[in-house]
Amino acid sequence: MYDVKVYVTYKDSVLDPQGEAVKGAVHRLGVREIEEIRIGKYFEIKVRKTNRPIEIVIEEICDKLLANVNMETYRYEIREEV
Amino acid sequence: MYDVKVYVTYKDSVLDPQGEAVKGAVHRLGVREIEEIRIGKYFEIKVRKTNRPIEIVIEEICDKLLANVNMETYRYEIREEV
Repeated sequence: MYDVKVYVTYKDSVLDPQGEAVKGAVHRLGVREIEEIRIGKYFEIKVRKTNRPIEIVIEEICDKLLANVNMETYRYEIREEV
Repeated sequence: MYDVKVYVTYKDSVLDPQGEAVKGAVHRLGVREIEEIRIGKYFEIKVRKTNRPIEIVIEEICDKLLANVNMETYRYEIREEV
């Protein structure tokens, strides 16, 4: 079994209005230290071992389902459970 | 300046119906290796240095705004920009 963490974020060239809105809310709280907030999605996935390489499995579901590759980019970390 | 990454996830005791739905969609794609998916939020935050400790700033905005501490838990990583 593998524990995989996937992080999906907007590409740098894409505006993140939700992040801007949260930054505004943080400032209204009185917290002045925050310069920028960008919001993404985070997936914790348990994957069963098969004879397909784990990277192939993860990239397939990211490309087809978890990320909109036109606007978003993703990265992932794989940890093998012992 | 600090680069901070915050991960907000449901507590283990809280069901994640969105994660269940995505798992169903993954299986309908034909990817059988996936055992479990849990979905969270991910924030990339740029924080200006002040004389308040960075941990205090981050925990304040997490507790008050980014996470619903009744149902969610969070963790964060701080990297100082050089």
